[in-house]
Amino acid sequence: MEYIAPLQNLIDKFSSIRGVGKKTAVRYAFSVLGMSDEAAASFAEAIIAAKRDVCHCKICGNLSDGDICRICSDEKRDHGVICVVEDERTLMAIEKVREYKGVYHVLGGAISPAADMGPDKLRIAELIERVNEGDVGEVIIATNPTVDGEMTAMYIGRLLEKSGVKITRLAYGVPVGADIENADEITLTKALDGRREI
Amino acid sequence: MEYIAPLQNLIDKFSSIRGVGKKTAVRYAFSVLGMSDEAAASFAEAIIAAKRDVCHCKICGNLSDGDICRICSDEKRDHGVICVVEDERTLMAIEKVREYKGVYHVLGGAISPAADMGPDKLRIAELIERVNEGDVGEVIIATNPTVDGEMTAMYIGRLLEKSGVKITRLAYGVPVGADIENADEITLTKALDGRREI
Repeated sequence: MEYIAPLQNLIDKFSSIRGVGKKTAVRYAFSVLGMSDEAAASFAEAIIAAKRDVCHCKICGNLSDGDICRICSDEKRDHGVICVVEDERTLMAIEKVREYKGVYHVLGGAISPAADMGPDKLRIAELIERVNEGDVGEVIIATNPTVDGEMTAMYIGRLLEKSGVKITRLAYGVPVGADIENADEITLTKALDGRREI
Repeated sequence: MEYIAPLQNLIDKFSSIRGVGKKTAVRYAFSVLGMSDEAAASFAEAIIAAKRDVCHCKICGNLSDGDICRICSDEKRDHGVICVVEDERTLMAIEKVREYKGVYHVLGGAISPAADMGPDKLRIAELIERVNEGDVGEVIIATNPTVDGEMTAMYIGRLLEKSGVKITRLAYGVPVGADIENADEITLTKALDGRREI
């Protein structure tokens, strides 16, 4: 039993979003039907506008509405420190802390043989070029602490070895506020390895 | 820290859907950015089309893409039995069973003093008119087994008392496949009240 065509079509579109199941898609479609005409029209326009107006920064690959993103064009930031992240969501997570004053380099993912994601599909060559050409003092590799993220960090580390630039990796350890008994073994091993004097 | 304007705008639109939180909206917006231009355009078009083409059946209030919905215009169905439901999702749930051969009447909600939902905001007058005018033998009241749904069922029952039409209510009881020990007290009381000989 299907819904009438225009409604079923909208349900199918919502289902095409990753992580949205059938029942949830139905709920969302009904929610759209319950919107005012103006709200629905501006929702549709927002989809078009986001696809049309969002591009990638020519320097760092971050999402931008112009050639150069607002971080790369901010002169108050330290352009000598580059934080390498897999995607824009990691970038936003670090930005939220308001602690980091350097710039970024967004790879667009991580090396993953399983997902057929080779280094050539990521913005790694651009990073190497940036480091070699610019006045860069440190590269902080903030890929995710997953197998793919680790592999990517090691790969980039090797490539930058000769550049003489300081290369760092985010600290591993027990998350603040968590019980140590709940930490997995690898995290705990890394936390012990990285212990500091107090 | 906000995302760039066109992306933040899309995130806000997704957030305006009931049940979508901030983090989920971000995920959905990124999923849209990852779509092809054609897919995003057809998603936007689906929203517009659903709002434009979906209307309510002039007879039963069900969602329809024409004046009369496909159930009301189906001559093979028994137009002498009307099942009264709160909304189209209940209707679809009953349709899925493929057991019911009558027609429907969609109220558009339930009477709810808390939500300032009076009988005049529901399609109750239309139902009474339909019953009085047509050749109706039975009205099955299938409002939800909630306080509001019960109140609505009683209200409609009273109004139809004089019409002489047979009025029924969906059976209450322990859901099939569930453990009786997990049933709440009211359900169990109703299940005892409604017990049948086997």
